[in-house]
Amino acid sequence: MKDVAIIGLGCAGYTAAIYTARYKLDTVIIGDVEGGMGMSAAEVGNWPGEIDIKGPDLMQKYKDHALSFDNVDLVSGRVENVGKVGKVGEGFSLTMQNGDVIEAKAVIFATGSNKRHLGIPGEEEFSGKGVTYCATCDAFFYRDKTVAVLGGGDSAVEGAAIAAQVAKKVYLVHRRDEFRAEPFWIDKVNEKDNIEFVLHTNALEVLGEQKVTGLKIDTPHNGSDVLDVDGVFIEVGSIPAVDLPQQLGCELDDRGHLKVDDAMRTNIKGAFAAGDVSSGSNHFAQFSTAAGEGSIAANSVFSYLQGGE
Amino acid sequence: MKDVAIIGLGCAGYTAAIYTARYKLDTVIIGDVEGGMGMSAAEVGNWPGEIDIKGPDLMQKYKDHALSFDNVDLVSGRVENVGKVGKVGEGFSLTMQNGDVIEAKAVIFATGSNKRHLGIPGEEEFSGKGVTYCATCDAFFYRDKTVAVLGGGDSAVEGAAIAAQVAKKVYLVHRRDEFRAEPFWIDKVNEKDNIEFVLHTNALEVLGEQKVTGLKIDTPHNGSDVLDVDGVFIEVGSIPAVDLPQQLGCELDDRGHLKVDDAMRTNIKGAFAAGDVSSGSNHFAQFSTAAGEGSIAANSVFSYLQGGE
Repeated sequence: MKDVAIIGLGCAGYTAAIYTARYKLDTVIIGDVEGGMGMSAAEVGNWPGEIDIKGPDLMQKYKDHALSFDNVDLVSGRVENVGKVGKVGEGFSLTMQNGDVIEAKAVIFATGSNKRHLGIPGEEEFSGKGVTYCATCDAFFYRDKTVAVLGGGDSAVEGAAIAAQVAKKVYLVHRRDEFRAEPFWIDKVNEKDNIEFVLHTNALEVLGEQKVTGLKIDTPHNGSDVLDVDGVFIEVGSIPAVDLPQQLGCELDDRGHLKVDDAMRTNIKGAFAAGDVSSGSNHFAQFSTAAGEGSIAANSVFSYLQGGE
Repeated sequence: MKDVAIIGLGCAGYTAAIYTARYKLDTVIIGDVEGGMGMSAAEVGNWPGEIDIKGPDLMQKYKDHALSFDNVDLVSGRVENVGKVGKVGEGFSLTMQNGDVIEAKAVIFATGSNKRHLGIPGEEEFSGKGVTYCATCDAFFYRDKTVAVLGGGDSAVEGAAIAAQVAKKVYLVHRRDEFRAEPFWIDKVNEKDNIEFVLHTNALEVLGEQKVTGLKIDTPHNGSDVLDVDGVFIEVGSIPAVDLPQQLGCELDDRGHLKVDDAMRTNIKGAFAAGDVSSGSNHFAQFSTAAGEGSIAANSVFSYLQGGE
């Protein structure tokens, strides 16, 4: 039985592993998507100390650091089920997709979040054929094409700015008239000549045959209720990945995040959370806050295994 | 009037500045000790992504990042007084030691903490003449000498390990029989042949003439109540630097830290806190938590200046 299993290969998970490693805990870190959401950041400018670094490069640095310790094992794969073993507080059993079972005395859920879908006609049909949920990951496939980016937060506005470096034209479609994004990124989209704002507008349907040809909208733009586009990047927020901790009975807060206290403890003894999935850090989901939470969770696991709370 | 004044040149302050800069806020960051407590870390192994980096090098990276933005000014110097200007919520006035006055609409206290003193005879007298509060900073002046490191936490145990690389002999004097330090560092001191543990022992007096010659202890060690040493490194914890925020009426928690809510707001409108000085992050004072808190505080300042809470 491992001392601690950390589920999730993002900044929170890797940071937790760095700390549990230094606490000399026998650590396993598990995940199916290496680097988590951070992989989709084309340009990271807010990780302290790195003026400008690519998301995948930053994730690699975290990973290399975590795996530099002898007492950290990385298991690639998807955890399907999590349950308690033995008496309360004795430990947890994780069942992998391939049937393997991993047991650990404590668990840290650093499962992050998944991209929200719109649920409009054509969205699922054209997923991967023009519809994508990561503008910054996929923009480079749309060189000299026309794309629509949907949303008004950081990932949408950053995504539009990145896409505009490659695409011929970018429509930034937002249901409100103001963006929630960082002013840094709002400035960037304002500087681009090939980004057109389509505000007060909702997407109704993704149109196409073999692949995407257009986006139907609820408010005519330049006299048409269809934007002629080759790609639709849906960036309308994310949903905390709480399926596994919910199997254990972990409670959520009113925004659907795993409810944690200051020590990153969930309501289940021995189960902790860190990063985007948690209710911590005032719901401010950043690399910096994920790192902070990962270190706190690890510290709490260490206390817990020493017989503290 | 600046949008925000950040007091403190440590990880929390620089991270807050990186974020307020990206929020396009006119930012001033002020402090008299560049790099704060981080400068005294000989070897940092827990800043995610840097397997092994010297404290001053890490602090330089933070600083370079913060100053890479046009809208961040650094002012070197000590803030002596802070007061409110105008009506509630209108802003703050900072008076520098040299008489300069800086005004800002919001303030973030990232003032960190100061080393705790023991208050024993000889301590003040020999301060700087053999008594020091930063083992990792000053150990290198004690090549082939004998030193005592006092304390049982991270900085004491790390300090003893670092000192042992240079000094002939290191006594690690601790009033308890167990160390509170990270197991990583406990392993390091256990590996050194030239570190001798002096446990269940309190220091009573620093002895010497022109400079330190010994440390009087309350429990005889090898038959003597004096350790013959050339240096005494006092690493018995730190005290949050709350003088300035207390001038404003900011409340403290029961451990003497600035009381903050999840958004890093103090009880004074427009005044925020981040890093070691704050009550946040479950009192776990790390680079990672300081960075998390700095970014949350900046985000909260941005909301506040936009007319939110």
